[in-house]
Amino acid sequence: MAQVRPFAPEIQIDSDSLSQRIQIISQTGTTRLAYSPEDIRGRTVVIKMMRDVGLNITIDAAGNIVGRRLGRKQLPPLAFGSHVDTVRDGGRYDGILGVMAAIECVRSLRDAGYTTEHPVEVIVFANEEGQRFGALCGSRALVGALDSDDLARTDEDGRTLSQAIQEIGGDPTQLRAAKRKAGDITAYVELHIEQGGTLEKAKTPIGIVEGISGISHTDVRITGRAAHAGTTTMEIRKDALVAASELVLSVRKAALESRCHVATVGQLTVMPNGINIIPGEVSLTIEVRDIEMDKITATLGHLRQCGKEIACRYGVQMDFSPRATIASVPCSPLMQEVIAQSCMDLGLGFLKLPSGAGHDAQMMAKLAPVGMIFVPSQDGISHSPREFTSSDHCSKGAQVLLRTILYLDEALSAPARSEA
Amino acid sequence: MAQVRPFAPEIQIDSDSLSQRIQIISQTGTTRLAYSPEDIRGRTVVIKMMRDVGLNITIDAAGNIVGRRLGRKQLPPLAFGSHVDTVRDGGRYDGILGVMAAIECVRSLRDAGYTTEHPVEVIVFANEEGQRFGALCGSRALVGALDSDDLARTDEDGRTLSQAIQEIGGDPTQLRAAKRKAGDITAYVELHIEQGGTLEKAKTPIGIVEGISGISHTDVRITGRAAHAGTTTMEIRKDALVAASELVLSVRKAALESRCHVATVGQLTVMPNGINIIPGEVSLTIEVRDIEMDKITATLGHLRQCGKEIACRYGVQMDFSPRATIASVPCSPLMQEVIAQSCMDLGLGFLKLPSGAGHDAQMMAKLAPVGMIFVPSQDGISHSPREFTSSDHCSKGAQVLLRTILYLDEALSAPARSEA
Repeated sequence: MAQVRPFAPEIQIDSDSLSQRIQIISQTGTTRLAYSPEDIRGRTVVIKMMRDVGLNITIDAAGNIVGRRLGRKQLPPLAFGSHVDTVRDGGRYDGILGVMAAIECVRSLRDAGYTTEHPVEVIVFANEEGQRFGALCGSRALVGALDSDDLARTDEDGRTLSQAIQEIGGDPTQLRAAKRKAGDITAYVELHIEQGGTLEKAKTPIGIVEGISGISHTDVRITGRAAHAGTTTMEIRKDALVAASELVLSVRKAALESRCHVATVGQLTVMPNGINIIPGEVSLTIEVRDIEMDKITATLGHLRQCGKEIACRYGVQMDFSPRATIASVPCSPLMQEVIAQSCMDLGLGFLKLPSGAGHDAQMMAKLAPVGMIFVPSQDGISHSPREFTSSDHCSKGAQVLLRTILYLDEALSAPARSEA
Repeated sequence: MAQVRPFAPEIQIDSDSLSQRIQIISQTGTTRLAYSPEDIRGRTVVIKMMRDVGLNITIDAAGNIVGRRLGRKQLPPLAFGSHVDTVRDGGRYDGILGVMAAIECVRSLRDAGYTTEHPVEVIVFANEEGQRFGALCGSRALVGALDSDDLARTDEDGRTLSQAIQEIGGDPTQLRAAKRKAGDITAYVELHIEQGGTLEKAKTPIGIVEGISGISHTDVRITGRAAHAGTTTMEIRKDALVAASELVLSVRKAALESRCHVATVGQLTVMPNGINIIPGEVSLTIEVRDIEMDKITATLGHLRQCGKEIACRYGVQMDFSPRATIASVPCSPLMQEVIAQSCMDLGLGFLKLPSGAGHDAQMMAKLAPVGMIFVPSQDGISHSPREFTSSDHCSKGAQVLLRTILYLDEALSAPARSEA
């Protein structure tokens, strides 16, 4: 790979303006479930901001907001963006930062009177969080991975995804028109909060994402024997919750032993859940994430083995049912290098890390090289109104994003140079 | 205490007739929640059976069914009985056996033309299980321990206990009339299934209850920090479910180490319970039972200490909130002795054991000496349609009950004898 050392103009991000944008959108609340009235309010605010910086707006068939600024040449655009939908009781930075920073980048370019070689596209993806209808709906549509089964899925009110997409201005009958193909985009870069505590702990302002972790979800059903908690002696019990507790601890231990990046039991339900009844059944889910899919597979194999041993010890039955696995997605080495160079130019420390969370970038990787820039999350908290990233960190991230775009614009528009 | 060796006539229980009675009442189902239409159907069947064996029926103000047979003398009655209400999806023996055996005892006395010295009373207590309105309602009323606050309690349909009592023919305005005082009853004996596996394991047909365990319930709330399961590294997590799992195992260990008879976490709820969210909060209840209240107190002290250590280890907060404690109730030594003598006369093996479950007998102990006779539960299963006790065991239990009553009738009607 060619060493990237092109020219990049010194264009500054206005930190106050970025903070103000984040503040303005946060006035629509911290719950903007995709396709809800709150989401639509947030989108309306964002579309206005995008127009105000001179972007030419279209809503694609999947409801993604696409803001375009022309370049000097007729090239596939450089794309960057994120999402404005949130989880229930979400935060003010997850997704939002990437969108607001993208708008701020465009404003900075405009104010500097600078026109890139490539057209630029700010993309605000629909339904990233997937609290309803599944995650990454907008980016999946963009890569042709949203099908009629997805469109027929319903939320708790019986509304289909198809109807929901119409409510945000999309046209589900024309979904194929939203689809881009490999080469339609030059590169995709996303700025996002880390949502974890690695950068904060390392006192490092910038994270360069090496890849997006693969995710596997496994349902486990533990069947013991419900019985009277007063009369059933300890020795003859088949307590499903005791067995489940051992499994929860095994899941944690597996990750602590570095079998995988993270492993979690987030959901656990006890039946019959009576104060004086020995639990007869427990359902739980195991989530394992890692950049290396082999490690996920090996961790699950190990946990099944733990489960067998626990089931035997407590006289219960333990059934593992794998759900769908999401493959990990590596970030482009070129992109990582460009982001690193930008950090060095700006005198900002950085470290490389995996993204434990899924992002629209993982879909975009099907079309183009992708890169992701992380900034620190205070106390590692995310998906919570307590989510916080300082305005200093936000603006440093935006500055790296802008410099990365400008580098890429130079590097990828120039004719390929030979090394020798 | 005087050695009990009075006369007891040889009157036989008809095993087939007892089995048939259990069969008949089971036709009303295995869910007869107190004060429900099913409960009322069961009570109607029982009242008819009681009348058919010559009992004179009254429904007291609390809705208890009281069937009386005159004795030779004007003495406080010998009482025996149990309950016909069940838990949801309950069994065919819990409560029912004691009621059917009591009726069968009266039938046997009548068929043998035998009149006891004392009047006898078969009592069918209302709402023993307490799936709604709390347990032991009928027997609590009988000892004056049901108050206006209890009567105002509502079920899930908003019906008050007061209304519910009227529906089974009671009169809540006259509750004081249902109250008996110490000395109003000569003695109370209850035959019941063990609901545990001790007798079966010991291959012993009869259990003599030494006392009814005390019960303590403690609510525990564990507060960690909900966070993104993909982005939050293992090291910075405050996972409430991991901490809860350690506590569940400590509870089990405490009982296995014989700190108390049994200890159980029956209820556990995870919040927010999302597949990809680290549990931020867990609520659970700890139940501890033992005959010795000191052991319950010591066990809870030990578990609080475990909780402190776990909370510290996982960076969570753990709050223990004790609910009401129910004191243990010893069975009368005289009654235990009489039951043991009856077993020996009948050539039946027995062992002494605590009752882990609560029973109406524990209320009756406020009025009179009480005794309880247990028969084996197959596989220790109870509160389940799989609850089973063989007809042989049922009839042996009923035979011991009858012999015990006849012994007591003799022993407690005779003038006190001096030992020397």
